[in-house]
Amino acid sequence: MPTETIAWRDGRVRIIDQTRLPTETKHLDLATVEEVWEAIRSLRVRGAPAIGVAAALGVVLGTQCSRAQDWPAFERDLRRTLDHLATARPTAVNLFWALDRMRRTAESVRDRPVEEIKRRLLDEALAMIEEDNRVCQALGEHGAALLPNPARVLTHCNTGGLATVSHGTALNAVFTAHRQGKRVEVFADETRPLLQGARLTAWECLQEGVPCTLICDSMAAVVLRDRGIDAVLVGADRIAANGDTANKVGTYMLAVLARAHGVPLYVVAPLSTVDFSIASGAEIPIEERQPDEVIRGFGKQTAPLGIPVFNPAFDVTPNHLIAAIVTERGVARPPYTESLRAAAGR
Amino acid sequence: MPTETIAWRDGRVRIIDQTRLPTETKHLDLATVEEVWEAIRSLRVRGAPAIGVAAALGVVLGTQCSRAQDWPAFERDLRRTLDHLATARPTAVNLFWALDRMRRTAESVRDRPVEEIKRRLLDEALAMIEEDNRVCQALGEHGAALLPNPARVLTHCNTGGLATVSHGTALNAVFTAHRQGKRVEVFADETRPLLQGARLTAWECLQEGVPCTLICDSMAAVVLRDRGIDAVLVGADRIAANGDTANKVGTYMLAVLARAHGVPLYVVAPLSTVDFSIASGAEIPIEERQPDEVIRGFGKQTAPLGIPVFNPAFDVTPNHLIAAIVTERGVARPPYTESLRAAAGR
Repeated sequence: MPTETIAWRDGRVRIIDQTRLPTETKHLDLATVEEVWEAIRSLRVRGAPAIGVAAALGVVLGTQCSRAQDWPAFERDLRRTLDHLATARPTAVNLFWALDRMRRTAESVRDRPVEEIKRRLLDEALAMIEEDNRVCQALGEHGAALLPNPARVLTHCNTGGLATVSHGTALNAVFTAHRQGKRVEVFADETRPLLQGARLTAWECLQEGVPCTLICDSMAAVVLRDRGIDAVLVGADRIAANGDTANKVGTYMLAVLARAHGVPLYVVAPLSTVDFSIASGAEIPIEERQPDEVIRGFGKQTAPLGIPVFNPAFDVTPNHLIAAIVTERGVARPPYTESLRAAAGR
Repeated sequence: MPTETIAWRDGRVRIIDQTRLPTETKHLDLATVEEVWEAIRSLRVRGAPAIGVAAALGVVLGTQCSRAQDWPAFERDLRRTLDHLATARPTAVNLFWALDRMRRTAESVRDRPVEEIKRRLLDEALAMIEEDNRVCQALGEHGAALLPNPARVLTHCNTGGLATVSHGTALNAVFTAHRQGKRVEVFADETRPLLQGARLTAWECLQEGVPCTLICDSMAAVVLRDRGIDAVLVGADRIAANGDTANKVGTYMLAVLARAHGVPLYVVAPLSTVDFSIASGAEIPIEERQPDEVIRGFGKQTAPLGIPVFNPAFDVTPNHLIAAIVTERGVARPPYTESLRAAAGR
């Protein structure tokens, strides 16, 4: 059963509060744009595709009570909402992609009554939910086709249903292969500091009935060497036009280790994650998060106070370490500057 | 000020309980061999050299109250103590080295009165404390000589005073360079699952006044690529005759990453860590520890119950990824089968 990570219910954004998993499955009903902003910032909702949809619904919440009577006034309210949501997290491009799409949607009907503009914004956000489901199913199919039978897969962070509206990206390739009858087994990096692998991927694999072994990130090298891994599957938060990929910190580590052990690393992500406006990964801003995530990760203090901490949330993997980028339009191979453009129909 | 990690005080083994650091500096006075066994098993005292000395003092505790009146009876008590302590942890060879040395010491005076045998065992254990201090100082000097000025060093686990009687191995090379006036800076892997880097290395660097930045293990690749690291320094729990090195899990990861980024990885360890009885790392037993270290590492449950966990405490780095092995007799270079024998005077 796919997870319903994010939904529109009775005029509110219903999400699973992912910071509570795996010990508690708690839903939150977000009623304001401020609550959506906080949920994205605090990783209650996370994963690039889910962030995009949450932001789109946040735009609906932020503008539906606008008292504007005409486009100029409404546009001011819209812009304030868009600008605010854009500050929630800097790296995942799906956030900006979704906000931009909502802006263009409103502009396309700017000459219509404000109530109709609001309706169109809601329709667009709901369409993005449907699209995300279709896109993730296609990602699952294309990704599954890359896996042998049996297959042992190493994963990082969480790329399952919890990272999208409900189906997942890289982990959905595993689940799709499993449903096709392939014998698939997962080794899941716990993914420090916030343990999305331990808390979310392990939980999803248990729900799905896919064998999963949890490891610390530092054990990935040994697993790649000694455990017959067939593929490393990861998601993406932003992919540059040349295929350089920003993803959860530790992905670059895996890419180097996978290459050293002759194992292919596949990025599985929707085309909305590709930022054609930047030529390479050097232009991707990398979010640095609070030291407390590292030194007080789970309540207890585990490092001396006053120790400086380097805590980037993401890293950039250069395109030459990526065997393929799986999109909803199929499998893109190097050179990515051409294959990604072709996939996007540009 | 060097730490006093382990000492003989009023007939007891005084240790710092390292499971309490960095929030609490608590000493324990171990009065029985059973308490020493538990302290080693639970990592209250850890680090291959410190484990060796603790075990030697454990032999003293285990035999000093023996009521044996002759060698055969005393030898039975001695053997029981040795056999028990040998089960505390399987990988660090210093444990077996120290136990063997205590056995040989006793045997060398087997024709003397039991009281004298007991005295000789205590003298030998105290001699090992003195030796460890001299050896670590030599390791510090030889290791420091490998570091440029300024130097940025990446470390894993804890190899400071807390891993030995008081001076440290790999981290002592950093501290020695610092005292020599070199500008040295440390990036410390936190070292999951038990966070010896976060809890112990960061704490020691703060005490010593050496700049230290804490990172998650998965960030080491990015630091190696982007932060101008000059050397990776690690300790060892067992080194095979050919230089293959078992050390805290994650060391193999670092070795592959260091090689990929053109950074030398140095192992810094006393010759007592070299196990000349085994030809290669394939023969080193690797301790697997409890899943709870991974899924409840910080007190709080951070993974779903029932998820299988792979939790090896160590991994083996092949000799070809090691730029040099620093011993108290100088810097051994490949091929290690010859250079290590030469260093040991074999």
